Amino acid sequence: MSTQYTIGLDYGTNSVRALIVNVANGAEVAAAVWIYSHGTQGVILSRDPNLARQHPADYLTGAETTIKQALAMAKKTVRGFKAGQVIGIGVDTTGSTPLPVDENGQPLVFQKKFASNPAAMAWLWKDHTGIAEATEITALARRMRPQYLAKCGGTYSSEWFFSKILKCLRAAPEVFNAAHSWIELSDFVPAALTDMLHPDKFIAGICAAGHKAMYSATWGGYPDKAFLSKLNPKLGALRDRLPKRVLAVDSAVGTLTADWAKRTGLSAGIPVTVGAFDAHTGAIGAGVKPGTLVKIIGTSTCDISVRVNTAKLADIPGVCGIVDGSVVPGYFGIEAGQSAVGDIFNWLVNYMQPGGAKAGSHEELTKGALKLQPGESGLLALDWNNGNRTVLVDQQLTGLLLGQTLYTTPAEVYRALIEATAYGALTIINRYEEYGVKIFEVVNCGGIAEKSPLVMQTYADITGRPMKISRSAQTCALGSAIAAAVVAGAHKDFATAQKKMTGLKPTVYKPNPKAHAIYKKLYALYKQLHDAFGTKQWNGNLHNVMKELIVIRDCVRR
Amino acid sequence: MSTQYTIGLDYGTNSVRALIVNVANGAEVAAAVWIYSHGTQGVILSRDPNLARQHPADYLTGAETTIKQALAMAKKTVRGFKAGQVIGIGVDTTGSTPLPVDENGQPLVFQKKFASNPAAMAWLWKDHTGIAEATEITALARRMRPQYLAKCGGTYSSEWFFSKILKCLRAAPEVFNAAHSWIELSDFVPAALTDMLHPDKFIAGICAAGHKAMYSATWGGYPDKAFLSKLNPKLGALRDRLPKRVLAVDSAVGTLTADWAKRTGLSAGIPVTVGAFDAHTGAIGAGVKPGTLVKIIGTSTCDISVRVNTAKLADIPGVCGIVDGSVVPGYFGIEAGQSAVGDIFNWLVNYMQPGGAKAGSHEELTKGALKLQPGESGLLALDWNNGNRTVLVDQQLTGLLLGQTLYTTPAEVYRALIEATAYGALTIINRYEEYGVKIFEVVNCGGIAEKSPLVMQTYADITGRPMKISRSAQTCALGSAIAAAVVAGAHKDFATAQKKMTGLKPTVYKPNPKAHAIYKKLYALYKQLHDAFGTKQWNGNLHNVMKELIVIRDCVRR
Repeated sequence: MSTQYTIGLDYGTNSVRALIVNVANGAEVAAAVWIYSHGTQGVILSRDPNLARQHPADYLTGAETTIKQALAMAKKTVRGFKAGQVIGIGVDTTGSTPLPVDENGQPLVFQKKFASNPAAMAWLWKDHTGIAEATEITALARRMRPQYLAKCGGTYSSEWFFSKILKCLRAAPEVFNAAHSWIELSDFVPAALTDMLHPDKFIAGICAAGHKAMYSATWGGYPDKAFLSKLNPKLGALRDRLPKRVLAVDSAVGTLTADWAKRTGLSAGIPVTVGAFDAHTGAIGAGVKPGTLVKIIGTSTCDISVRVNTAKLADIPGVCGIVDGSVVPGYFGIEAGQSAVGDIFNWLVNYMQPGGAKAGSHEELTKGALKLQPGESGLLALDWNNGNRTVLVDQQLTGLLLGQTLYTTPAEVYRALIEATAYGALTIINRYEEYGVKIFEVVNCGGIAEKSPLVMQTYADITGRPMKISRSAQTCALGSAIAAAVVAGAHKDFATAQKKMTGLKPTVYKPNPKAHAIYKKLYALYKQLHDAFGTKQWNGNLHNVMKELIVIRDCVRR
Repeated sequence: MSTQYTIGLDYGTNSVRALIVNVANGAEVAAAVWIYSHGTQGVILSRDPNLARQHPADYLTGAETTIKQALAMAKKTVRGFKAGQVIGIGVDTTGSTPLPVDENGQPLVFQKKFASNPAAMAWLWKDHTGIAEATEITALARRMRPQYLAKCGGTYSSEWFFSKILKCLRAAPEVFNAAHSWIELSDFVPAALTDMLHPDKFIAGICAAGHKAMYSATWGGYPDKAFLSKLNPKLGALRDRLPKRVLAVDSAVGTLTADWAKRTGLSAGIPVTVGAFDAHTGAIGAGVKPGTLVKIIGTSTCDISVRVNTAKLADIPGVCGIVDGSVVPGYFGIEAGQSAVGDIFNWLVNYMQPGGAKAGSHEELTKGALKLQPGESGLLALDWNNGNRTVLVDQQLTGLLLGQTLYTTPAEVYRALIEATAYGALTIINRYEEYGVKIFEVVNCGGIAEKSPLVMQTYADITGRPMKISRSAQTCALGSAIAAAVVAGAHKDFATAQKKMTGLKPTVYKPNPKAHAIYKKLYALYKQLHDAFGTKQWNGNLHNVMKELIVIRDCVRR
């Protein structure tokens, strides 16, 4: 039998990637990336800093362009490669990124009258225009359907499905009224590739539906009509027009159409899997299993772990969601995340140092930060420049830097910001463990994990756990390719596929016990600030914070 | 009668200045500045960031050099000017800046064996090596002599006389044991110019003794022997060798010696006034009177006000001192201060922007900050990068910046730091008023006051009081020259001398009611942080802070 391949199609914030993977060993034989053509690197912005939209045409152009390019590259790099050896396609995307569609399943923005209306485009994951609506949904659910909130950490986010749709209903009723239905980007792409792009045929992924749209088999699917109608009768009516079938990534949505086969060069009829969010397929691609936390570290992070779904799992307050089958079928998928990680470091480099250039680059700041001992700077920061996704679930939190003197340097601040994100990571791990989900190791993915020993060692020292790095630099696309391999029958299940197709880099960052001991003290101070500014329950004094930092600093410097 | 002049000799942190002033109208006819030759711009530093010393040779060389140069300049600029028209010299210095002297009154560091020993030099005001000693003195006084603390704000500072001497006794006993006595810089210079440089003849200024050495006529002078002995018997023994006479700036220490007349070109026999601290003579030079707060704004601030000494004045917790006659004879002098103002702005420009250059200069940041509305940035800062002198009296407090997002700019931070120092200024004013000292207007002195309409308007908007600017750019030296004019008999009293010799610039910054209203809300949040991190009494929640800042921000941006 000749070598078989699958394609992972990975839709990010600024670009889409097609990755061709050998199903026998996970070798990534070819890839292509296409930057979206609309807006600023694919994101349509406005005067409102909360608004972020995408044009769905980019999704279709992107699939065609990248698949064609990746196939061309594979033909060059793999002797005898033929497009016919590709046996399936998996799809992952950002999310929650819903878009309004018409009676034919076509994006509303494709209609001339809505062609330049941002409300008719895809509402990108980081669009926060629905803050008031999220608050309203949370408040109503707390009163009327507390079970809905229990599975998504206690708070419904402005980034999520119904917040965005309700916001559209209020702010752009002409769009809401013209829309027949709404579909997540992760469901839109598989439907478009397989001739399932029709409201009657739509299949939703359990990943998006479960984590972002309060879908659960326990209560019969999406939130009930009475609940949605209470928010707005039109939202209640919309429920009837949402996808009827909701499946996991071990199912196919359908098979590639002849048209798409012609456009890409692939064989018609190969399966296209149910779509999922990038972080979730990323966890698959990083080899997620019980006891392992996968951190996809980029501008923000997604933290994914799984737990067998045969044992009972308590609701975990503050995590973004616990959904049966949302990552790997047969397991609860648990999603958490940090609203900003790389973005905070970029803020210091790009925004806070206008004269920047070489002196203030990531490389130079890293050099300076590496010379410092834990606690030496006397600084402590909160990692909330973009709010807090887990465990506080509060977009209206902001950054905090404390302990600066007249001699504090950018390298010290840089290290303090890295430490802050590590404290944020530890806070998530601690929350998991409080509710019985043990985390023994962390597998990290993304450019920062691969390129910054400073960040990885700091994470190991602060969390007290080994930091491992995924072998693949494209775990999200790889995970989609793995799902496609399972769906196409190349492997009998995900565990087998992961064993064959994923791996780790040889470098492991182990906690330094001396550094960990100092960071334990610093984390206690972080936790004080975290609770004081982030929760209503906290009631105490912070007089100790600056003083203890000085004691630790002087102790380290001595 | 030909025109008469006096000289103000003003010893700063990095340089000394001689100013020649016309006693009839305050015209500043000539000036000369000399940067100290020892250490880094006159300051001897070490690996210990708390250490800051000066070499007393710089004080003597500085007097000779600047007086000679100023006289030479006056001869060029004033037709017919003769050195003989100078009728007196006034002296002001930094403080508390004590130095150890031998049996002959000579600085100990002039002895060969101590020539390079920093402990034998002058302990500059900003030397904080005596933090532990300050805590010890405060604790003992609280138990044993609470009255000592009541007049200096409730806490004895590490910057002050006995903290430094006790630290020397502990850390450099060979220096302490070799010293016959200790003298403040403000007392050393007048003694050196007048042949009074002998321990039996030393005269201390009430300004230094009262504000920094717990001296008060109420309890018979310096702290009693039993108290000092309890700290260390050798400190108790030292009390007998401290200056016996303590006077205000309306007295002369003596007259200029023939030797100094020869060295400078001045007439021998002209009076040299009792010395005082720069901020105190600065208040005289700015026209201080009841109801006016004089702010000397530089790297840090000194805030000086006066109140008639015929009425009773309550102790004011947290102010640096209330001393009868320490500023203007016949009035209580009240001293407060902010540990860092210009220094905080300099930190952002010089330390936080290594690539800095033009993009990050004070001028460019000011331009950016001027475009912002109050509250628009969503930022809030504490002005504690160098601790808090008033009202918390705590060197171990540090900076805090809160509210940053992923888009926060240096100009926004710059404005937030300026606002933070203004909130600090308002906190001092509020404390004065709580204890019955009304402040109707603020007269500002120093480069920042003259050059930054942004800072001055912000101060007006935040404090709700008009900000005026002293006419003289050298109020400290001018104040010394005014004291010399009174002592030399050119004016009958300080009120008359001030009326003739001081003035204001025409520009007055008046509070903008709309800005003031927003700042009232922001100040309430500042006060929350201030109390939470700065006091042990506070016990509450800070969950509102970040959210209220966002509400204010969104309201301003709309």
